[in-house]
Amino acid sequence: MRSILDTLTMKWDGHALHLLDQRKLPTEVTYIRCQSHEDVSRAIGDMVVRGAPAIGAAAAFGYVLGAMRFAESRSGDVTKAMATVRSTLSASRPTAVNLFWALKRMHLFFESRNTKPQWLSELEREAITIAEEDISTNRRIGELGASLLSDQSNVITHCNAGALATVGYGTALGVIRDAKDQGKAVHVFVDETRPYLQGARLTAWELINDGIDCTLISDNMAGWVMKKKGINAVVVGADRITTNGDAANKIGSYSLAVLAAFHKIPFYVVAPSSTIDLELLSGEEIPIEERSSEEITHISGIRIAPENVSCFNPAFDVIPASLITAIVTEDAVNYPPYHFRSTSGKHH
Amino acid sequence: MRSILDTLTMKWDGHALHLLDQRKLPTEVTYIRCQSHEDVSRAIGDMVVRGAPAIGAAAAFGYVLGAMRFAESRSGDVTKAMATVRSTLSASRPTAVNLFWALKRMHLFFESRNTKPQWLSELEREAITIAEEDISTNRRIGELGASLLSDQSNVITHCNAGALATVGYGTALGVIRDAKDQGKAVHVFVDETRPYLQGARLTAWELINDGIDCTLISDNMAGWVMKKKGINAVVVGADRITTNGDAANKIGSYSLAVLAAFHKIPFYVVAPSSTIDLELLSGEEIPIEERSSEEITHISGIRIAPENVSCFNPAFDVIPASLITAIVTEDAVNYPPYHFRSTSGKHH
Repeated sequence: MRSILDTLTMKWDGHALHLLDQRKLPTEVTYIRCQSHEDVSRAIGDMVVRGAPAIGAAAAFGYVLGAMRFAESRSGDVTKAMATVRSTLSASRPTAVNLFWALKRMHLFFESRNTKPQWLSELEREAITIAEEDISTNRRIGELGASLLSDQSNVITHCNAGALATVGYGTALGVIRDAKDQGKAVHVFVDETRPYLQGARLTAWELINDGIDCTLISDNMAGWVMKKKGINAVVVGADRITTNGDAANKIGSYSLAVLAAFHKIPFYVVAPSSTIDLELLSGEEIPIEERSSEEITHISGIRIAPENVSCFNPAFDVIPASLITAIVTEDAVNYPPYHFRSTSGKHH
Repeated sequence: MRSILDTLTMKWDGHALHLLDQRKLPTEVTYIRCQSHEDVSRAIGDMVVRGAPAIGAAAAFGYVLGAMRFAESRSGDVTKAMATVRSTLSASRPTAVNLFWALKRMHLFFESRNTKPQWLSELEREAITIAEEDISTNRRIGELGASLLSDQSNVITHCNAGALATVGYGTALGVIRDAKDQGKAVHVFVDETRPYLQGARLTAWELINDGIDCTLISDNMAGWVMKKKGINAVVVGADRITTNGDAANKIGSYSLAVLAAFHKIPFYVVAPSSTIDLELLSGEEIPIEERSSEEITHISGIRIAPENVSCFNPAFDVIPASLITAIVTEDAVNYPPYHFRSTSGKHH
């Protein structure tokens, strides 16, 4: 297998996308081979891969797989075929905007080339660029964000905004990695992040593997930990940020932001600029995915709640800008009032 | 079996205490037979029975079992023997004061009779009285507390302060039961209550069995539910209340109280007066039990976090009086500033 992109989260070998099956962590490290855009769409929907930036990059490779299938069959209209590929991938999850951002970028790229010679390898190159840019973007975010952490930091994080949520390095955890590399002492309190346990299964695993001090807590302990453990920052990722600075992120982020405000602890949202949705004015407009009750009633297939219980299972909530101390992107540490605009045209 | 106390939570047959094994709910309803005070102490420590008032009543029967063993063996000094029984039971769990309250009441009763004729049956009668009083106390609490809920109530509760946490009827859930009996429409959002899942396993089960509308949520959703679902009250139990009105309760209660304050939602603590510790001035003095990491890293024996991860697992936290709208006991709906004092001598 000639890997032309090879990170922990995803590997592209020129023919298929191999996604780390994050549902199996921390007990098993296995990859799922996606050979079509439908495979990639299903892998995103089923949370084989998750995390806004990782979803975006995976979708870009899914788009390439769709183009490859068209090129093999050579039947029908390529414009229509690629529109279908895009919409199949778009339908996988509704909240993280990076998915739509990456697909738009790929689709605009396709429209500029259509099926000119080399179009497939150029599309493939564009997907790899998206993936590689994600890593370099995260490193830049890490550098900028690390300045916000003091030399002795006790940080709470929620969900997983780490290497596993991105192509590599991570957003919120990238900030922590960079702070540690600068010689700062950082201890991370990891919210287990019910119902899907991304904190327990992914973040704790990543931090332990990287030798970063951490303590796992259940989500409802966050307030008590803020009160008792000298927490001096909360750092989370984001799935979609609107122009006014509202940020959708994993369910529980809103509660955490309220708790941080009450304890006068700075609350930082860390994300690439591709997470900013310039078409939305406020968080009220962000579609919030609701997922199956089974995520709450069962863990690893074992029932932990009574039969027929009703559940409410929003996968995300919205942190209002008023509760966010700063939003860190690769471009800047942004402080309120937030007014995000298209600047470079680089991404939008 | 001649049951002379027979509730869902516990049954006393004159020879042994049968405790509903709450660790097996909601999938199995089985009882554990305790034939000695050591059995009862172990059952409390292992959370076969939990909930401050239920622990108190169970300990009272444990005390009776200790006296019965002495009466059988007739060896040694009864005063010394009963002091050992008391201390064995006291050591089972540190935070809920009802345990110490019930044991003190039993021990004072014993000291007033020693081994006079009928002492065993009198001790047994006292334990049954404690248990029966718990139910009538809860009914009185329910009546008083129900007045706090409006005709259309959306309530959040945390952990289990229901029939299962008491000898019967419940404290926080007693308030909800009484409101429903009065014809009020109550919908309960049930925090699943990690790590031990008392909300998912016990409260949801109790409410469904009683035909009370409920929706199960993960704890980190509470803030978002307050914002989006028109919550108009939070009702929880307590494990120890100090004279200034600070209340220790299941971990997560503190976060919930902060969230309620932010959303201007009344936060009610509901408990019998036996939960008030008149010897402590403030919550700072309450010992907080820390339990095994395995409660966080495993569910039903299945590992959900990486090997060797550090955990912080306090079983309780303290809600400061400043965040409590009212404390409901069988005597009154108490509003701040709280200054609990011994009044009737009934319990203290």
